Amino acid sequence: MHFFSDNATPVCPQVMAAIAAADQADHGYDGDRWSARLDSAFSALFETEVKALWVATGTAANSIALATLCPPYGGILAHEEAHIVIDECGAPGFFTHGATIMPLPGDGAKLTPDTVAAKLKTIRPDVHQSPARALSITQASEYGRVYLPAEVAALGDLARAYGLGFHMDGARFANAVACLGCAPADITWRAGVDALSFGCVKNGGMVGEALLFFGPQAEVRAEDAKRWRKRSGHLFSKGRYLAAQILAMLEGDLWLANARAANAAARALAQAIPARLLHPVEANELFVRLTADEAAQLRTRGFDFYDWGDGAARLVTNWAQDAAAVAPFAAALAALDP
Amino acid sequence: MHFFSDNATPVCPQVMAAIAAADQADHGYDGDRWSARLDSAFSALFETEVKALWVATGTAANSIALATLCPPYGGILAHEEAHIVIDECGAPGFFTHGATIMPLPGDGAKLTPDTVAAKLKTIRPDVHQSPARALSITQASEYGRVYLPAEVAALGDLARAYGLGFHMDGARFANAVACLGCAPADITWRAGVDALSFGCVKNGGMVGEALLFFGPQAEVRAEDAKRWRKRSGHLFSKGRYLAAQILAMLEGDLWLANARAANAAARALAQAIPARLLHPVEANELFVRLTADEAAQLRTRGFDFYDWGDGAARLVTNWAQDAAAVAPFAAALAALDP
Amino acid sequence: MHFFSDNATPVCPQVMAAIAAADQADHGYDGDRWSARLDSAFSALFETEVKALWVATGTAANSIALATLCPPYGGILAHEEAHIVIDECGAPGFFTHGATIMPLPGDGAKLTPDTVAAKLKTIRPDVHQSPARALSITQASEYGRVYLPAEVAALGDLARAYGLGFHMDGARFANAVACLGCAPADITWRAGVDALSFGCVKNGGMVGEALLFFGPQAEVRAEDAKRWRKRSGHLFSKGRYLAAQILAMLEGDLWLANARAANAAARALAQAIPARLLHPVEANELFVRLTADEAAQLRTRGFDFYDWGDGAARLVTNWAQDAAAVAPFAAALAALDP
Amino acid sequence: MHFFSDNATPVCPQVMAAIAAADQADHGYDGDRWSARLDSAFSALFETEVKALWVATGTAANSIALATLCPPYGGILAHEEAHIVIDECGAPGFFTHGATIMPLPGDGAKLTPDTVAAKLKTIRPDVHQSPARALSITQASEYGRVYLPAEVAALGDLARAYGLGFHMDGARFANAVACLGCAPADITWRAGVDALSFGCVKNGGMVGEALLFFGPQAEVRAEDAKRWRKRSGHLFSKGRYLAAQILAMLEGDLWLANARAANAAARALAQAIPARLLHPVEANELFVRLTADEAAQLRTRGFDFYDWGDGAARLVTNWAQDAAAVAPFAAALAALDP
Repeated sequence: MHFFSDNATPVCPQVMAAIAAADQADHGYDGDRWSARLDSAFSALFETEVKALWVATGTAANSIALATLCPPYGGILAHEEAHIVIDECGAPGFFTHGATIMPLPGDGAKLTPDTVAAKLKTIRPDVHQSPARALSITQASEYGRVYLPAEVAALGDLARAYGLGFHMDGARFANAVACLGCAPADITWRAGVDALSFGCVKNGGMVGEALLFFGPQAEVRAEDAKRWRKRSGHLFSKGRYLAAQILAMLEGDLWLANARAANAAARALAQAIPARLLHPVEANELFVRLTADEAAQLRTRGFDFYDWGDGAARLVTNWAQDAAAVAPFAAALAALDP
Repeated sequence: MHFFSDNATPVCPQVMAAIAAADQADHGYDGDRWSARLDSAFSALFETEVKALWVATGTAANSIALATLCPPYGGILAHEEAHIVIDECGAPGFFTHGATIMPLPGDGAKLTPDTVAAKLKTIRPDVHQSPARALSITQASEYGRVYLPAEVAALGDLARAYGLGFHMDGARFANAVACLGCAPADITWRAGVDALSFGCVKNGGMVGEALLFFGPQAEVRAEDAKRWRKRSGHLFSKGRYLAAQILAMLEGDLWLANARAANAAARALAQAIPARLLHPVEANELFVRLTADEAAQLRTRGFDFYDWGDGAARLVTNWAQDAAAVAPFAAALAALDP
Repeated sequence: MHFFSDNATPVCPQVMAAIAAADQADHGYDGDRWSARLDSAFSALFETEVKALWVATGTAANSIALATLCPPYGGILAHEEAHIVIDECGAPGFFTHGATIMPLPGDGAKLTPDTVAAKLKTIRPDVHQSPARALSITQASEYGRVYLPAEVAALGDLARAYGLGFHMDGARFANAVACLGCAPADITWRAGVDALSFGCVKNGGMVGEALLFFGPQAEVRAEDAKRWRKRSGHLFSKGRYLAAQILAMLEGDLWLANARAANAAARALAQAIPARLLHPVEANELFVRLTADEAAQLRTRGFDFYDWGDGAARLVTNWAQDAAAVAPFAAALAALDP
Repeated sequence: MHFFSDNATPVCPQVMAAIAAADQADHGYDGDRWSARLDSAFSALFETEVKALWVATGTAANSIALATLCPPYGGILAHEEAHIVIDECGAPGFFTHGATIMPLPGDGAKLTPDTVAAKLKTIRPDVHQSPARALSITQASEYGRVYLPAEVAALGDLARAYGLGFHMDGARFANAVACLGCAPADITWRAGVDALSFGCVKNGGMVGEALLFFGPQAEVRAEDAKRWRKRSGHLFSKGRYLAAQILAMLEGDLWLANARAANAAARALAQAIPARLLHPVEANELFVRLTADEAAQLRTRGFDFYDWGDGAARLVTNWAQDAAAVAPFAAALAALDP
């Protein structure tokens, strides 16, 4: 049983079925029946008018979103361990044509209004300095932490006050919503978010993430994003197969059910080793103290995962698991000397 | 029955089966078993050592290839009606950071050594002018024309003489090989081609094209391409589903069988209306004289296709058709007043 | 006596005097007294509110102007022999982040509404094709031809109708105005021009050209241009020395007097060899039939210039010459066998 | 008497004389006699073969240097308060097409091998993370601190070990050499530096800085830099006026004499207020504690300078001053209540 990454897991059956159902002749690119339904499906889910595009990957969703929010001479405020900062080979720099990433500190890879405001105050309003134009946070964060609605809203207020576009990297947005039990709207547009990378692949999809725009500028930004999508080689010629996957994720709240399973599995593991946790477990990732010997011992027994530097490991649960499924691993963890 | 585009057609069954077979847990990105087999599968097909990557789309394949061949200050020689010039929203300019496209004329969207050489001679070797650094041709061309091996080789000689990287946009490479009956090697590396966009989606795939590098610089360029792939958001997290499709296309020469069917269908149509053809039919596209009345008449009878300016139409056949399947349309075309 | 280029000539005395007069302590960048006067000086000259910036070179002025008019995914219509197309090493591609240059034909390196409109009609309004967003012409053109006010206005009408930003490369704007005897306004904003590269260096300056913006969007574009100026390394720390040169050119219409002298010199040469002219002579450049023997003969007598391909030469006159000064060369030309 | 910036000061007389002497006809761009002498003049000064180009500004010199050292997907290690990081409106991002700036902490805006090595160790060698490819330091630093030759060499060793190009922003390189009394070679190529922005304008020039390349790749990088210079609009058409200024700075070690004067003036001020210094004074900048009242008091007496946040000020001395010239200000400072 592996806990490498939610990427390592198969596609969930409903998504596979949706792909098969979409295997019909239709117009190319995004001219098909499935792509045409994305806006309304997400508008219903988010209780507001949403503009939605499919793109290939989370990196593409994040980068295209940022390109619509920040000019080349602007700055993007983000956590110094954010995926966009350290794990996308500089993709935001590519799509924004060299906008300046402004990395900020923060526990659990979360930003606070204080650190954001402190940075904003150091920027002089002259042409020598890049003006901050966008703020990006990850929900759930790179350490599996979740922003409360009020926390997002406080950052949203700051974004509005300073004229920043507000982007949320939601590679694990479903896990955050499952954790919070809130409406998707509560941690997005109601809290000031302008653009959301809505992750599907980690949550049971095969290929394709959704990029959503909210608010009065949604339409203009979505039109811009369509240009970037084509220009960056992300306008699939058979887009219906992506749209169908995304729609299947929304159908009957499959996205939420999948995330709840993964979160439950993570909680079950966390409860087995509370003293080993490096971060509170709120979504589907655990960062745990684990010696090389202990790791080896677990691997001998058939459990695998990635090391996280010296003396630590990252364990990621996924949609195909739940508390029962991971019970053997929980037991093995609990059995380690404390 | 539609003749819009090979994009409008469903996925062929063998590809669907391959996707299902790949639906297993494995490492993310390109760390899986299927992705690991691409180099050897293409090396066998091309009878030389090939470096192969999957990417999302043909636009991505073309643009990443060009980015590895041409610096930002360089120039790219291409036909003025090439897909990279007029149908990719400037993607090559994005990926190459503003390299200069140098559009050239030529019948049937094909380049000749004469027009290429004539342009090369006008470029002064000083810093004021962008030096040509890459040559790109489309095989089969945007008008369904095919370059003979000797024609490619003549351009390849010119490319070598002037130090140009030589790229082939092979969105319909299979149709060209099916037409020529040659070895894939004969119109690629043996003729001087350095990088090939090997199309799969138009030929029966769902998502994913292959980008191939040949020759002594193949490894260095492929490493560069991997950086661009990540940086442009094309490194899928579940790459095995793309690799499996591409491998399925190569298995038992499915790619060639599919292209032969499409070409045969096109030939059958062409034979019905030889006097209406605007270009010789060598692959799976027909460009035909057709009045608005005639087009309407055909549509009434259930045949559909795209207009091609005033008084003309484009008809594209696909892998799921053959001469028999298109016989009714051939008859309808033949029955038009000449 | 040389006729290489107007760049090869010394700086005119009034500009040198202005540099000396500006050699005082003042605020850095563009915070000085001279830079502060640019807007009003150009507003007076152009009889409308103008926003003016100094930049290093004509290439910088052209590229920054285009970057404010055209998004990365857009297209720029220009003559295929325009300086921005073939003599700036792709600078517009760099500053616009890869916008697509759309080269058009035309006698004397001039565009006509017909060729521009014909191209515009071929562009489909979908995301696959780069939409034209800017039109750029050179006044006087690369072959020393001048657009009449009505010719500029016809292009301006087309630009407005299609939503194109209209840029004029005025490296030799002074020579065009001197030829036409019109108001500067007549061939710029009154004819629909949005941005002008106002050349100074070829016309007697040392370092620094002016970039001007007209019309309702002038202020927004000038603010954008200031960002590009800094970001591209063109915000000189002692900008007062550039501003002073530009102001000196405007003082007492020195710019026009200099251009009139150069034009008169060119006319004097043209009258000596009417049968050899490859283009009508309207500004300060002559393109003439001249065999290698004839060229050698003239060089032996102390006259020098650049060859212009086989059997032709380019002769450029400058501010420091006039009809009398070039009389010996005119005589030598006239003495050649016809 | 002002202490705003060394930019606010006039041009030194020898540079003015050199400009006048260069006011002759010659070939355009960098084809003139003065530009041709730059390589040899700097090679003599640095006791090795140097490739030298003039560019407009320090920002251009820094950015072009970094573009030759770092690919778009690479990372640039620099101090978090470095000029390239916070005062160039993202110019390095523009010229490198979005390379990732990796900001590091350090006292006095100086980097240490420890902080650099610590960052390098966190970067995984996979395509998800941008590999560090360049290291940039400022000599003298943004707080007027100087790197000793051994300090530069320790960073140079690290750069070599990790395959990083090593760039030095030498806007105040002269002040550093004047402080250290070393050979220019000792803190550049002998210590592993590959590219140096050699500042002239702050040190008495009018327009134009020098960009120098050292070592076995100097020629290749300089050729690349010439492409970037043209492509970014920095190839002045009358380059002789820039080359002449730079040569004048080197003639008789004027650059060093000017820097020594400025440093002496700074030392004189520092000795007047040792208890107020926020950083040791090693070059020509002082950062001092100063209340708003004290600042107002000094300004009333005719001394001016920029505030540096609350309760502090920055004082910059220049080539036109020396200890005697600033004695009145030193006295006024000393007279403040301690």
